[in-house]
Amino acid sequence: MAQGARAVSLKNRHMMPLRALIFDVFGTLVDWRGSIAREARALLAPRGVSIDWHVFADAWRAQYQPAMEEVRTGKIPFSKLDVLHRRNLEVVLREFAIDDLDEVTKVQLNLAWHRLDAWPDVAPGLRRLREHYRIAPCSNGNVSLMVDLARRNGFPWDAILGAEFARDYKPKAVVYQSAATAFDCAPDEVLMVAAHSSDLAAAAGAGLRTAHVARPDESGPGRGEHAPSVAVDLAARDLLDLADRLGASVD
Amino acid sequence: MAQGARAVSLKNRHMMPLRALIFDVFGTLVDWRGSIAREARALLAPRGVSIDWHVFADAWRAQYQPAMEEVRTGKIPFSKLDVLHRRNLEVVLREFAIDDLDEVTKVQLNLAWHRLDAWPDVAPGLRRLREHYRIAPCSNGNVSLMVDLARRNGFPWDAILGAEFARDYKPKAVVYQSAATAFDCAPDEVLMVAAHSSDLAAAAGAGLRTAHVARPDESGPGRGEHAPSVAVDLAARDLLDLADRLGASVD
Repeated sequence: MAQGARAVSLKNRHMMPLRALIFDVFGTLVDWRGSIAREARALLAPRGVSIDWHVFADAWRAQYQPAMEEVRTGKIPFSKLDVLHRRNLEVVLREFAIDDLDEVTKVQLNLAWHRLDAWPDVAPGLRRLREHYRIAPCSNGNVSLMVDLARRNGFPWDAILGAEFARDYKPKAVVYQSAATAFDCAPDEVLMVAAHSSDLAAAAGAGLRTAHVARPDESGPGRGEHAPSVAVDLAARDLLDLADRLGASVD
Repeated sequence: MAQGARAVSLKNRHMMPLRALIFDVFGTLVDWRGSIAREARALLAPRGVSIDWHVFADAWRAQYQPAMEEVRTGKIPFSKLDVLHRRNLEVVLREFAIDDLDEVTKVQLNLAWHRLDAWPDVAPGLRRLREHYRIAPCSNGNVSLMVDLARRNGFPWDAILGAEFARDYKPKAVVYQSAATAFDCAPDEVLMVAAHSSDLAAAAGAGLRTAHVARPDESGPGRGEHAPSVAVDLAARDLLDLADRLGASVD
């Protein structure tokens, strides 16, 4: 009932109609941890590497924010996430004392981020939401990475927006705002959907409306957000629940 | 046979595999002239306007290149095509002495460019091509315009690339090259598809491979290119013919 009340408040508080939905991807739509662990194991185990593959995934992901911060602060020019992931991979391989990997394998391993699996509600949820709204990822992942995830998982995007389109990284306001602009929307005509309160707080700061999706096991059992820790317009269990709530408010 | 020989030469001359196809849209995929004439008539005839609707469409289109040239030369900052179309509309309305149009009607008329119909081969052709290649528009039209045309006509794009992504207008090389970069491709791994020789000459100059599609009636009966006037890698009758040729060269 608390969540139902929030859905109603979304409808009542905003006079502007909702016209577009944009989505965080890593963690919100796809299981990066389980997929990276699987891909790393498939490539490295046959080469004699024996490590905790989930810890390896966590270590690689831990390099993510510091690398983007160099772009956000202007220390380095915009570089697509594939490039940052590759630089981060070198750091992580050293951490795990994996020092004899050939270049072809490193390239394949870096592309593991293009082979992440979606949570099961995502493709059917996006198909329903697309009937009412323009939809796009607003991820820090680059265009080709988003395209490969879409093809793998059947995401029916209208466009690929986000960091590479804006040439900067979330949570900078320009990334959210440039997605709204591309869809010819005012910021408050766009709903940012994410499983991370920090992403939603930044989107709200940029003028967007926000929806939280629970991914309580994103970073391992119990290590994910089961509810938002910031004020949001709507909190949903998953994308099918989100479609139910938004469908109810627009039909 | 001449065209068959070209398809073979495409295969033999280039050692790099073809990985992505990008497309011109206005004229190549959609019938801008017939659609704008229809939309203008539907909006203006009930308001007592009686003109030659195809001549009106031609006049609006005639303002297209001069407006973009102001962006290309740096005279004005990048503005999305919807904005240039609206500015051009004011010019054309004056030309036709239509001086009493309300703002809502002008907005609706400007969005006529979002309601263009595709040539009949395009949607089935793109569906076939997408099985083998990443595909995106590389148009001077903005993202929302491309999204609306895709939804209207069933274009299954992987991403929306082109002018708004590059923040400049074709035929500047950066527009073609930024599309290749977004797809993680070298320029010569990408095929630019267009019905206009000038577009293909610029794409070739930027390092891309090129395919011409015949649209002999684009600007009225007999007023379109039935064949390229520049060297191209491949010349096709339409997108189904293009799919046949590329399918034959990759299977």
